[in-house]
Amino acid sequence: MTYCVGLRLKRGLVFMSDTRTNAGVDNVSVFRKMFTWSVPGERILTIMSAGNLATTQAVISLLDERSKAPAERNPSILEAPSMFQVATLVGDLLREVIQVHGSEGQKAESTFNATLILGGQIATGGPRLFMIYPEGNFIEASDDTPFFQIGETKYGRPILVRAFEPEMRFEDAIKLLMVSFDSTIKANLSVGLPLDLTVHERDSFQLAHEMRIEADNPYFQAISDGWGDALRLAFQSLPAFQFED
Amino acid sequence: MTYCVGLRLKRGLVFMSDTRTNAGVDNVSVFRKMFTWSVPGERILTIMSAGNLATTQAVISLLDERSKAPAERNPSILEAPSMFQVATLVGDLLREVIQVHGSEGQKAESTFNATLILGGQIATGGPRLFMIYPEGNFIEASDDTPFFQIGETKYGRPILVRAFEPEMRFEDAIKLLMVSFDSTIKANLSVGLPLDLTVHERDSFQLAHEMRIEADNPYFQAISDGWGDALRLAFQSLPAFQFED
Repeated sequence: MTYCVGLRLKRGLVFMSDTRTNAGVDNVSVFRKMFTWSVPGERILTIMSAGNLATTQAVISLLDERSKAPAERNPSILEAPSMFQVATLVGDLLREVIQVHGSEGQKAESTFNATLILGGQIATGGPRLFMIYPEGNFIEASDDTPFFQIGETKYGRPILVRAFEPEMRFEDAIKLLMVSFDSTIKANLSVGLPLDLTVHERDSFQLAHEMRIEADNPYFQAISDGWGDALRLAFQSLPAFQFED
Repeated sequence: MTYCVGLRLKRGLVFMSDTRTNAGVDNVSVFRKMFTWSVPGERILTIMSAGNLATTQAVISLLDERSKAPAERNPSILEAPSMFQVATLVGDLLREVIQVHGSEGQKAESTFNATLILGGQIATGGPRLFMIYPEGNFIEASDDTPFFQIGETKYGRPILVRAFEPEMRFEDAIKLLMVSFDSTIKANLSVGLPLDLTVHERDSFQLAHEMRIEADNPYFQAISDGWGDALRLAFQSLPAFQFED
Protein backbone atom coordinates (compact mmCIF):
# COMPACT_ATOMS: atom_id res chain seq x y z
CA MET A 1 0.00 0.00 0.00
CA THR A 2 0.96 3.65 0.14
CA TYR A 3 -0.15 6.89 1.70
CA CYS A 4 -0.07 10.23 -0.15
CA VAL A 5 -1.83 13.49 0.65
CA GLY A 6 -2.11 16.69 -1.39
CA LEU A 7 -3.34 19.85 0.34
CA ARG A 8 -4.71 22.90 -1.46
CA LEU A 9 -4.04 25.95 0.70
CA LYS A 10 -4.66 29.61 -0.05
CA ARG A 11 -0.87 30.04 -0.18
CA GLY A 12 -0.20 27.12 -2.50
CA LEU A 13 0.04 23.35 -2.54
CA VAL A 14 1.67 20.89 -0.12
CA PHE A 15 2.39 17.25 -1.03
CA MET A 16 3.55 14.41 1.19
CA SER A 17 4.08 10.76 0.27
CA ASP A 18 5.57 7.71 1.94
CA THR A 19 8.10 5.52 0.13
CA ARG A 20 7.23 1.97 1.13
CA THR A 21 6.24 -0.54 -1.53
CA ASN A 22 5.46 -4.15 -0.87
CA ALA A 23 4.53 -7.26 -2.80
CA GLY A 24 3.80 -9.43 0.19
CA VAL A 25 5.24 -8.72 3.61
CA ASP A 26 8.58 -10.27 2.69
CA ASN A 27 9.15 -8.13 -0.37
CA VAL A 28 9.39 -4.59 0.97
CA SER A 29 11.30 -1.80 -0.76
CA VAL A 30 11.78 1.95 -0.76
CA PHE A 31 10.66 3.73 -3.94
CA ARG A 32 9.98 7.37 -4.56
CA LYS A 33 6.29 8.06 -5.27
CA MET A 34 6.55 11.82 -5.78
CA PHE A 35 7.82 13.47 -8.98
CA THR A 36 8.14 17.13 -9.86
CA TRP A 37 8.65 18.97 -13.15
CA SER A 38 9.10 22.69 -13.51
CA VAL A 39 9.70 25.42 -16.08
CA PRO A 40 11.04 28.27 -13.97
CA GLY A 41 8.80 31.28 -14.10
CA GLU A 42 6.07 29.49 -16.05
CA ARG A 43 4.87 26.21 -14.51
CA ILE A 44 5.43 23.65 -11.78
CA LEU A 45 3.86 20.17 -11.60
CA THR A 46 3.98 17.43 -8.97
CA ILE A 47 2.53 13.93 -9.27
CA MET A 48 2.14 11.37 -6.47
CA SER A 49 1.18 7.76 -7.12
CA ALA A 50 -0.50 4.87 -5.32
CA GLY A 51 -1.05 1.42 -6.73
CA ASN A 52 0.89 -0.93 -8.96
CA LEU A 53 4.52 0.22 -9.03
CA ALA A 54 5.22 -0.98 -12.57
CA THR A 55 2.22 1.02 -13.78
CA THR A 56 3.17 4.22 -11.99
CA GLN A 57 6.83 4.02 -12.98
CA ALA A 58 5.81 3.46 -16.61
CA VAL A 59 3.53 6.50 -16.50
CA ILE A 60 6.26 8.69 -15.02
CA SER A 61 8.84 7.46 -17.54
CA LEU A 62 6.48 8.08 -20.44
CA LEU A 63 5.65 11.55 -19.14
CA ASP A 64 9.39 12.20 -19.03
CA GLU A 65 9.68 10.82 -22.57
CA ARG A 66 12.48 8.59 -21.41
CA SER A 67 12.00 6.44 -24.50
CA LYS A 68 13.61 9.26 -26.49
CA ALA A 69 17.22 10.37 -26.52
CA PRO A 70 17.77 13.01 -23.84
CA ALA A 71 18.29 15.79 -26.38
CA GLU A 72 14.98 15.04 -28.12
CA ARG A 73 12.79 15.02 -25.02
CA ASN A 74 10.10 17.62 -24.92
CA PRO A 75 7.51 16.33 -22.51
CA SER A 76 4.02 17.35 -23.51
CA ILE A 77 3.04 18.07 -19.91
CA LEU A 78 5.56 20.94 -20.09
CA GLU A 79 3.79 22.28 -23.20
CA ALA A 80 0.12 21.88 -22.34
CA PRO A 81 -1.46 25.29 -21.89
CA SER A 82 -3.57 24.53 -18.79
CA MET A 83 -3.64 22.28 -15.73
CA PHE A 84 -6.85 20.72 -17.07
CA GLN A 85 -4.99 19.65 -20.20
CA VAL A 86 -2.10 18.30 -18.13
CA ALA A 87 -4.56 16.25 -16.07
CA THR A 88 -6.16 14.95 -19.28
CA LEU A 89 -2.77 13.95 -20.69
CA VAL A 90 -1.74 12.19 -17.50
CA GLY A 91 -5.11 10.45 -17.17
CA ASP A 92 -5.03 9.21 -20.77
CA LEU A 93 -1.52 7.87 -20.31
CA LEU A 94 -2.45 6.13 -17.04
CA ARG A 95 -5.46 4.44 -18.67
CA GLU A 96 -3.39 3.32 -21.66
CA VAL A 97 -0.61 1.82 -19.52
CA ILE A 98 -3.13 -0.10 -17.42
CA GLN A 99 -4.98 -1.32 -20.52
CA VAL A 100 -1.85 -2.65 -22.24
CA HIS A 101 -0.74 -4.71 -19.26
CA GLY A 102 -4.21 -5.60 -18.05
CA SER A 103 -5.53 -7.02 -21.31
CA GLU A 104 -2.50 -8.59 -22.98
CA GLY A 105 -0.01 -11.28 -22.10
CA GLN A 106 -0.09 -13.38 -18.96
CA LYS A 107 -2.63 -12.73 -16.27
CA ALA A 108 -1.28 -11.43 -12.98
CA GLU A 109 -2.78 -12.25 -9.60
CA SER A 110 -3.29 -8.59 -8.73
CA THR A 111 -4.58 -5.76 -10.86
CA PHE A 112 -2.37 -3.14 -12.47
CA ASN A 113 -4.46 -0.27 -11.18
CA ALA A 114 -3.02 2.99 -9.91
CA THR A 115 -4.38 6.32 -8.71
CA LEU A 116 -2.54 9.62 -8.96
CA ILE A 117 -2.63 13.02 -7.30
CA LEU A 118 -1.56 15.82 -9.66
CA GLY A 119 -1.00 19.37 -8.47
CA GLY A 120 0.60 22.46 -9.90
CA GLN A 121 0.25 25.86 -11.42
CA ILE A 122 0.66 27.12 -14.98
CA ALA A 123 1.17 30.86 -15.46
CA THR A 124 -1.65 32.88 -13.92
CA GLY A 125 -4.02 29.93 -13.59
CA GLY A 126 -3.60 29.59 -9.83
CA PRO A 127 -2.58 26.39 -8.01
CA ARG A 128 -4.82 23.43 -8.88
CA LEU A 129 -5.04 19.94 -7.44
CA PHE A 130 -6.48 16.82 -9.13
CA MET A 131 -7.11 13.18 -8.28
CA ILE A 132 -6.76 10.94 -11.35
CA TYR A 133 -8.42 7.52 -11.41
CA PRO A 134 -7.21 4.33 -13.14
CA GLU A 135 -9.90 4.86 -15.78
CA GLY A 136 -8.21 8.14 -16.75
CA ASN A 137 -10.92 10.47 -15.53
CA PHE A 138 -10.27 12.90 -12.69
CA ILE A 139 -11.74 15.27 -10.13
CA GLU A 140 -10.44 18.63 -8.94
CA ALA A 141 -10.11 19.90 -5.38
CA SER A 142 -12.37 22.79 -4.45
CA ASP A 143 -13.11 24.98 -1.44
CA ASP A 144 -15.50 22.27 -0.23
CA THR A 145 -12.98 19.44 -0.66
CA PRO A 146 -9.57 21.05 -0.38
CA PHE A 147 -7.40 17.95 -0.04
CA PHE A 148 -6.99 14.51 -1.58
CA GLN A 149 -5.63 11.30 -0.08
CA ILE A 150 -4.68 8.12 -1.95
CA GLY A 151 -3.60 4.69 -0.71
CA GLU A 152 -4.15 3.80 2.94
CA THR A 153 -6.34 6.82 3.66
CA LYS A 154 -8.52 5.96 6.64
CA TYR A 155 -6.26 6.06 9.70
CA GLY A 156 -4.96 9.53 8.92
CA ARG A 157 -8.23 11.06 7.82
CA PRO A 158 -9.91 12.08 11.11
CA ILE A 159 -7.15 14.56 12.05
CA LEU A 160 -7.16 16.06 8.55
CA VAL A 161 -10.92 16.50 8.66
CA ARG A 162 -10.75 18.18 12.06
CA ALA A 163 -7.63 20.33 11.84
CA PHE A 164 -7.21 21.35 8.19
CA GLU A 165 -7.75 25.03 7.41
CA PRO A 166 -7.26 26.49 3.91
CA GLU A 167 -5.62 29.56 5.48
CA MET A 168 -2.92 27.53 7.24
CA ARG A 169 0.73 28.47 7.02
CA PHE A 170 2.89 25.97 5.15
CA GLU A 171 4.63 25.10 8.44
CA ASP A 172 1.33 24.19 10.11
CA ALA A 173 0.21 22.20 7.08
CA ILE A 174 3.43 20.17 7.24
CA LYS A 175 2.92 19.58 10.95
CA LEU A 176 -0.63 18.37 10.20
CA LEU A 177 0.61 16.02 7.50
CA MET A 178 3.21 14.58 9.85
CA VAL A 179 0.52 13.82 12.44
CA SER A 180 -1.67 12.21 9.78
CA PHE A 181 1.24 10.12 8.45
CA ASP A 182 2.34 9.15 11.96
CA SER A 183 -1.16 7.84 12.79
CA THR A 184 -1.12 5.81 9.58
CA ILE A 185 2.40 4.45 10.04
CA LYS A 186 1.62 3.43 13.63
CA ALA A 187 -1.42 1.44 12.47
CA ASN A 188 -0.39 -0.03 9.13
CA LEU A 189 2.80 -1.85 8.18
CA SER A 190 2.40 -1.09 4.48
CA VAL A 191 3.09 2.62 4.98
CA GLY A 192 6.61 3.58 6.08
CA LEU A 193 9.29 6.19 6.38
CA PRO A 194 11.10 7.98 4.81
CA LEU A 195 8.54 10.56 3.67
CA ASP A 196 8.87 12.96 0.74
CA LEU A 197 7.64 16.51 1.08
CA THR A 198 7.17 19.18 -1.58
CA VAL A 199 5.72 22.69 -1.33
CA HIS A 200 4.54 24.84 -4.25
CA GLU A 201 4.19 28.46 -3.27
CA ARG A 202 1.48 30.29 -5.22
CA ASP A 203 2.86 32.16 -8.25
CA SER A 204 6.42 31.09 -7.53
CA PHE A 205 6.85 28.40 -10.26
CA GLN A 206 9.76 26.79 -8.52
CA LEU A 207 9.98 24.34 -5.66
CA ALA A 208 9.61 26.45 -2.53
CA HIS A 209 10.68 23.49 -0.39
CA GLU A 210 11.57 19.91 -1.02
CA MET A 211 12.84 17.49 1.57
CA ARG A 212 13.01 13.85 2.55
CA ILE A 213 12.06 13.02 6.13
CA GLU A 214 14.10 10.02 7.27
CA ALA A 215 13.25 7.77 10.21
CA ASP A 216 15.74 9.61 12.43
CA ASN A 217 14.36 13.07 11.62
CA PRO A 218 14.20 14.78 15.03
CA TYR A 219 11.11 16.85 14.21
CA PHE A 220 9.15 13.80 13.02
CA GLN A 221 10.18 11.93 16.16
CA ALA A 222 9.06 14.85 18.32
CA ILE A 223 5.68 14.86 16.57
CA SER A 224 5.32 11.09 16.84
CA ASP A 225 6.18 10.99 20.54
CA GLY A 226 4.33 14.20 21.36
CA TRP A 227 1.13 13.25 19.55
CA GLY A 228 0.54 10.23 21.77
CA ASP A 229 0.82 12.39 24.88
CA ALA A 230 -1.20 15.21 23.34
CA LEU A 231 -3.98 12.79 22.36
CA ARG A 232 -4.12 11.34 25.85
CA LEU A 233 -4.31 14.85 27.34
CA ALA A 234 -7.02 15.78 24.83
CA PHE A 235 -8.92 12.65 25.79
CA GLN A 236 -8.63 13.45 29.49
CA SER A 237 -9.84 17.00 28.88
CA LEU A 238 -13.22 15.72 27.67
CA PRO A 239 -16.05 15.48 30.21
CA ALA A 240 -16.19 12.16 32.10
CA PHE A 241 -18.95 9.66 31.40
CA GLN A 242 -21.25 8.86 34.30
CA PHE A 243 -23.68 5.99 34.63
CA GLU A 244 -27.19 7.21 35.28
CA ASP A 245 -28.00 4.77 38.03
CA MET B 1 -20.74 -1.68 6.95
CA THR B 2 -20.70 -1.66 10.72
CA TYR B 3 -18.44 -0.74 13.60
CA CYS B 4 -18.17 -2.82 16.78
CA VAL B 5 -15.50 -2.81 19.48
CA GLY B 6 -14.99 -5.16 22.43
CA LEU B 7 -12.59 -4.10 25.20
CA ARG B 8 -11.04 -6.48 27.72
CA LEU B 9 -10.32 -4.52 30.90
CA LYS B 10 -9.04 -5.75 34.23
CA ARG B 11 -12.49 -4.99 35.67
CA GLY B 12 -14.46 -6.76 32.96
CA LEU B 13 -15.64 -6.36 29.37
CA VAL B 14 -17.12 -3.39 27.52
CA PHE B 15 -18.94 -3.73 24.17
CA MET B 16 -20.13 -1.03 21.80
CA SER B 17 -21.79 -1.44 18.41
CA ASP B 18 -23.49 0.83 15.92
CA THR B 19 -26.88 -0.06 14.43
CA ARG B 20 -26.68 1.01 10.80
CA THR B 21 -27.11 -1.54 8.06
CA ASN B 22 -27.11 -0.75 4.39
CA ALA B 23 -27.56 -2.55 1.12
CA GLY B 24 -26.60 0.37 -1.09
CA VAL B 25 -26.87 3.96 0.07
CA ASP B 26 -30.63 4.07 -0.55
CA ASN B 27 -31.43 1.03 1.58
CA VAL B 28 -30.40 2.04 5.08
CA SER B 29 -31.92 0.58 8.23
CA VAL B 30 -31.43 0.35 11.97
CA PHE B 31 -30.78 -3.17 13.30
CA ARG B 32 -29.42 -4.28 16.61
CA LYS B 33 -26.00 -5.95 16.25
CA MET B 34 -25.43 -6.74 19.94
CA PHE B 35 -27.07 -9.67 21.77
CA THR B 36 -26.70 -10.79 25.36
CA TRP B 37 -27.58 -14.01 27.19
CA SER B 38 -27.17 -14.60 30.89
CA VAL B 39 -27.74 -17.18 33.59
CA PRO B 40 -27.71 -15.09 36.75
CA GLY B 41 -24.90 -16.07 39.06
CA GLU B 42 -23.34 -18.45 36.55
CA ARG B 43 -22.64 -16.94 33.10
CA ILE B 44 -23.05 -13.94 30.86
CA LEU B 45 -22.41 -13.83 27.11
CA THR B 46 -22.50 -11.00 24.57
CA ILE B 47 -22.11 -11.32 20.80
CA MET B 48 -21.64 -8.47 18.32
CA SER B 49 -21.82 -8.98 14.56
CA ALA B 50 -20.49 -7.39 11.38
CA GLY B 51 -21.22 -8.58 7.87
CA ASN B 52 -24.22 -10.01 6.07
CA LEU B 53 -27.34 -9.28 8.13
CA ALA B 54 -29.23 -12.41 7.08
CA THR B 55 -26.26 -14.51 8.17
CA THR B 56 -25.85 -12.85 11.55
CA GLN B 57 -29.59 -12.88 12.30
CA ALA B 58 -29.74 -16.58 11.40
CA VAL B 59 -26.82 -17.31 13.72
CA ILE B 60 -28.42 -15.42 16.60
CA SER B 61 -31.81 -17.11 16.04
CA LEU B 62 -30.22 -20.55 15.93
CA LEU B 63 -28.23 -19.83 19.09
CA ASP B 64 -31.53 -18.89 20.72
CA GLU B 65 -33.09 -22.10 19.38
CA ARG B 66 -35.95 -20.05 17.99
CA SER B 67 -36.87 -22.94 15.73
CA LYS B 68 -38.18 -24.76 18.80
CA ALA B 69 -41.27 -24.00 20.84
CA PRO B 70 -40.41 -21.52 23.60
CA ALA B 71 -40.86 -24.12 26.33
CA GLU B 72 -38.44 -26.54 24.69
CA ARG B 73 -35.60 -24.11 24.16
CA ASN B 74 -32.43 -24.92 25.97
CA PRO B 75 -29.68 -23.08 24.10
CA SER B 76 -26.45 -25.01 24.12
CA ILE B 77 -24.41 -21.84 24.65
CA LEU B 78 -26.08 -21.67 28.08
CA GLU B 79 -24.93 -25.24 28.81
CA ALA B 80 -21.38 -25.29 27.48
CA PRO B 81 -18.92 -25.56 30.37
CA SER B 82 -16.34 -23.03 29.14
CA MET B 83 -16.01 -19.89 27.03
CA PHE B 84 -13.77 -21.84 24.65
CA GLN B 85 -16.61 -24.28 24.01
CA VAL B 86 -19.08 -21.44 23.55
CA ALA B 87 -16.75 -19.87 20.97
CA THR B 88 -16.44 -23.24 19.21
CA LEU B 89 -20.23 -23.66 19.11
CA VAL B 90 -20.78 -20.15 17.76
CA GLY B 91 -17.98 -20.52 15.21
CA ASP B 92 -19.34 -23.84 13.93
CA LEU B 93 -22.80 -22.39 13.59
CA LEU B 94 -21.50 -19.31 11.76
CA ARG B 95 -19.55 -21.46 9.29
CA GLU B 96 -22.57 -23.71 8.66
CA VAL B 97 -24.96 -20.83 8.04
CA ILE B 98 -22.53 -19.25 5.57
CA GLN B 99 -21.95 -22.59 3.81
CA VAL B 100 -25.66 -23.34 3.34
CA HIS B 101 -26.42 -20.01 1.73
CA GLY B 102 -23.10 -19.63 -0.03
CA SER B 103 -23.10 -22.97 -1.83
CA GLU B 104 -26.75 -23.65 -2.59
CA GLY B 105 -29.51 -21.93 -4.51
CA GLN B 106 -29.12 -18.71 -6.45
CA LYS B 107 -25.85 -16.83 -6.42
CA ALA B 108 -25.91 -13.44 -4.73
CA GLU B 109 -23.83 -10.48 -5.83
CA SER B 110 -22.19 -10.13 -2.43
CA THR B 111 -20.84 -12.78 -0.09
CA PHE B 112 -22.67 -14.02 2.98
CA ASN B 113 -19.66 -13.56 5.22
CA ALA B 114 -19.84 -12.27 8.77
CA THR B 115 -17.43 -11.78 11.64
CA LEU B 116 -18.39 -11.88 15.32
CA ILE B 117 -17.00 -10.63 18.61
CA LEU B 118 -17.93 -12.89 21.53
CA GLY B 119 -17.24 -11.97 25.12
CA GLY B 120 -18.34 -13.22 28.48
CA GLN B 121 -17.60 -15.11 31.63
CA ILE B 122 -18.61 -18.56 32.85
CA ALA B 123 -18.29 -19.25 36.58
CA THR B 124 -14.75 -18.66 37.83
CA GLY B 125 -13.19 -18.65 34.36
CA GLY B 126 -12.66 -14.91 34.23
CA PRO B 127 -13.90 -12.58 31.46
CA ARG B 128 -12.78 -13.70 28.00
CA LEU B 129 -13.07 -12.03 24.62
CA PHE B 130 -12.97 -13.72 21.19
CA MET B 131 -13.06 -12.71 17.54
CA ILE B 132 -14.78 -15.37 15.40
CA TYR B 133 -14.10 -15.50 11.66
CA PRO B 134 -16.49 -16.56 8.87
CA GLU B 135 -14.57 -19.84 8.58
CA GLY B 136 -15.58 -20.66 12.16
CA ASN B 137 -12.14 -20.39 13.72
CA PHE B 138 -11.38 -17.72 16.30
CA ILE B 139 -8.72 -15.86 18.26
CA GLU B 140 -8.78 -14.71 21.88
CA ALA B 141 -7.82 -11.31 23.28
CA SER B 142 -4.73 -11.28 25.49
CA ASP B 143 -2.71 -8.77 27.48
CA ASP B 144 -0.83 -7.95 24.26
CA THR B 145 -3.99 -7.46 22.20
CA PRO B 146 -6.69 -6.49 24.68
CA PHE B 147 -9.39 -5.28 22.27
CA PHE B 148 -11.04 -6.35 19.01
CA GLN B 149 -12.70 -4.26 16.33
CA ILE B 150 -14.88 -5.52 13.47
CA GLY B 151 -16.42 -3.72 10.50
CA GLU B 152 -15.15 -0.26 9.59
CA THR B 153 -12.17 -0.40 11.93
CA LYS B 154 -9.56 1.99 10.59
CA TYR B 155 -10.81 5.50 11.38
CA GLY B 156 -11.36 4.76 15.05
CA ARG B 157 -8.21 2.71 15.61
CA PRO B 158 -5.52 5.38 16.25
CA ILE B 159 -7.22 6.74 19.39
CA LEU B 160 -7.78 3.21 20.75
CA VAL B 161 -4.13 2.33 20.18
CA ARG B 162 -2.97 5.50 21.93
CA ALA B 163 -5.41 5.84 24.84
CA PHE B 164 -6.52 2.34 25.83
CA GLU B 165 -5.30 1.09 29.21
CA PRO B 166 -6.35 -2.30 30.65
CA GLU B 167 -6.67 -0.68 34.08
CA MET B 168 -9.21 1.89 32.89
CA ARG B 169 -12.44 2.50 34.78
CA PHE B 170 -15.58 1.51 32.86
CA GLU B 171 -16.53 5.17 32.58
CA ASP B 172 -13.23 6.05 30.89
CA ALA B 173 -13.50 3.06 28.57
CA ILE B 174 -16.96 4.21 27.48
CA LYS B 175 -15.64 7.72 26.88
CA LEU B 176 -12.84 6.22 24.76
CA LEU B 177 -15.31 4.15 22.74
CA MET B 178 -17.46 7.21 22.12
CA VAL B 179 -14.45 9.10 20.73
CA SER B 180 -13.54 6.15 18.53
CA PHE B 181 -17.12 5.80 17.25
CA ASP B 182 -17.44 9.55 16.70
CA SER B 183 -14.29 9.59 14.53
CA THR B 184 -15.70 6.71 12.50
CA ILE B 185 -19.19 8.16 12.14
CA LYS B 186 -17.75 11.53 11.04
CA ALA B 187 -15.72 9.84 8.29
CA ASN B 188 -17.95 7.01 7.07
CA LEU B 189 -21.63 7.08 6.13
CA SER B 190 -22.08 3.34 6.66
CA VAL B 191 -21.65 3.64 10.44
CA GLY B 192 -24.37 5.49 12.33
CA LEU B 193 -26.15 6.22 15.57
CA PRO B 194 -27.80 4.97 17.73
CA LEU B 195 -25.07 2.98 19.50
CA ASP B 196 -25.56 0.02 21.81
CA LEU B 197 -23.44 -0.31 24.92
CA THR B 198 -23.06 -3.25 27.30
CA VAL B 199 -20.76 -3.71 30.30
CA HIS B 200 -19.91 -7.03 31.97
CA GLU B 201 -18.43 -6.52 35.40
CA ARG B 202 -15.96 -9.27 36.38
CA ASP B 203 -17.60 -12.03 38.49
CA SER B 204 -21.00 -10.32 38.41
CA PHE B 205 -22.82 -12.58 35.87
CA GLN B 206 -25.45 -10.01 35.14
CA LEU B 207 -25.48 -6.96 32.91
CA ALA B 208 -23.77 -4.26 34.93
CA HIS B 209 -24.93 -1.65 32.43
CA GLU B 210 -26.82 -1.68 29.17
CA MET B 211 -27.91 1.37 27.26
CA ARG B 212 -28.71 2.70 23.82
CA ILE B 213 -27.08 6.00 22.87
CA GLU B 214 -29.40 7.90 20.56
CA ALA B 215 -28.41 10.75 18.26
CA ASP B 216 -29.67 13.33 20.75
CA ASN B 217 -27.72 11.86 23.70
CA PRO B 218 -26.24 14.95 25.39
CA TYR B 219 -23.07 13.17 26.52
CA PHE B 220 -22.32 11.83 23.04
CA GLN B 221 -22.92 15.29 21.60
CA ALA B 222 -20.55 16.81 24.17
CA ILE B 223 -17.87 14.27 23.22
CA SER B 224 -18.43 14.81 19.51
CA ASP B 225 -18.25 18.59 19.75
CA GLY B 226 -15.51 18.62 22.36
CA TRP B 227 -13.25 16.16 20.55
CA GLY B 228 -12.86 18.45 17.54
CA ASP B 229 -11.76 21.31 19.78
CA ALA B 230 -9.57 19.03 21.92
CA LEU B 231 -7.87 17.63 18.81
CA ARG B 232 -7.17 21.11 17.49
CA LEU B 233 -5.69 22.15 20.85
CA ALA B 234 -3.61 18.96 20.97
CA PHE B 235 -2.38 19.72 17.46
CA GLN B 236 -1.47 23.29 18.41
CA SER B 237 0.39 22.04 21.48
CA LEU B 238 2.90 20.15 19.31
CA PRO B 239 6.14 21.92 18.40
CA ALA B 240 5.94 24.02 15.23
CA PHE B 241 7.69 22.91 12.06
CA GLN B 242 10.42 25.21 10.77
CA PHE B 243 12.03 25.20 7.35
CA GLU B 244 15.77 24.81 7.61
CA ASP B 245 16.67 27.49 5.10
